[in-house]
Amino acid sequence: MPSQYLDALIRELSRLPGIGHKSASRLAFHVLKMSNDEVARLLSSVAELKKNITTCRVCGGISDGDTCSICTNPARDRAVICAVEEQKDVLTIEKTGGFRGLYHVLGGVLSPLDGIGPDELAIGRLMERCRQGGVREVIIATNPTIEGDATALYLSRLLGEAGVTAMRIAHGIPVGADLDFADSATLIKSIQARVKI
Amino acid sequence: MPSQYLDALIRELSRLPGIGHKSASRLAFHVLKMSNDEVARLLSSVAELKKNITTCRVCGGISDGDTCSICTNPARDRAVICAVEEQKDVLTIEKTGGFRGLYHVLGGVLSPLDGIGPDELAIGRLMERCRQGGVREVIIATNPTIEGDATALYLSRLLGEAGVTAMRIAHGIPVGADLDFADSATLIKSIQARVKI
Repeated sequence: MPSQYLDALIRELSRLPGIGHKSASRLAFHVLKMSNDEVARLLSSVAELKKNITTCRVCGGISDGDTCSICTNPARDRAVICAVEEQKDVLTIEKTGGFRGLYHVLGGVLSPLDGIGPDELAIGRLMERCRQGGVREVIIATNPTIEGDATALYLSRLLGEAGVTAMRIAHGIPVGADLDFADSATLIKSIQARVKI
Repeated sequence: MPSQYLDALIRELSRLPGIGHKSASRLAFHVLKMSNDEVARLLSSVAELKKNITTCRVCGGISDGDTCSICTNPARDRAVICAVEEQKDVLTIEKTGGFRGLYHVLGGVLSPLDGIGPDELAIGRLMERCRQGGVREVIIATNPTIEGDATALYLSRLLGEAGVTAMRIAHGIPVGADLDFADSATLIKSIQARVKI
């Protein structure tokens, strides 16, 4: 390599997810072309994020302070909580702009083989939020995997005992997709979960 | 967004080439999971690169000092120079490990419509290197575009006048590719440029 500094940056960038050696090289050369101001802005946004970000005391999602801006937003519907696996799932749902309730980050799914039981997840905190009252419905948005479905089933029983309606997000044919390309499991699910027009 | 810091980083990352909003989100969440040491190493490798990297006085490629490690390497064949469009092309060829000569970065290709003539490229410096003697051959490795080919033709005339052999990299069917998938222009070129077995 004609430059050890370039080599070092390419090596660091290659460690990032979804960035191979070729993308890392392209990014490193882009950094060379960026103005010092642009680079400073990029570096400081990484540093600021690491310094300031924390976890919301209520929902367990990412937050800039003690409680996140979703939990403190008076315009949100406090009777509906959407339970998700990971912090990033909150952002994915928020981006749709179609959900106005609150969230609860479980921190994973039940997976006995990996030693992850109910105590390893934020299930106790979710039940506590339900017991504090005002929660009518919990929408369980774990991924449609075996573990995600098992976690949803487990949660639905707990919620039922607490008098809260447990709902599961619908699984079926993606909007705009072709029946030809759907796998059989999804297709069967979409027929079983048919809705009246 | 539940965090302005996360939002800011995703926005900055989205500006990078080949990084859309989804990749930027994934990278930002990865940054959250990285240890402080790892983040510090990434940030410092960007800062060090911007601070230390410069352009080689001889070949115009990237360099950590006045002259790059390729130009100063006594093991390289100084009689052969490979002329490329961009600095990154040097690394692309170096990665093959099969070329032991020197390089010359032109800084682009002739493009009269964009106002790029011979004076806008490092052609004068290349001819100077040839005049200083010891250069037997220049391999022109500009891209096989109209401008790249025109630049190669222009250079070959200048080099011929200077008594230096001008060579062009071969164009043909990529190694391992199927004839079926080759475009006609490449296929015709590979027949015209046939070599004896």
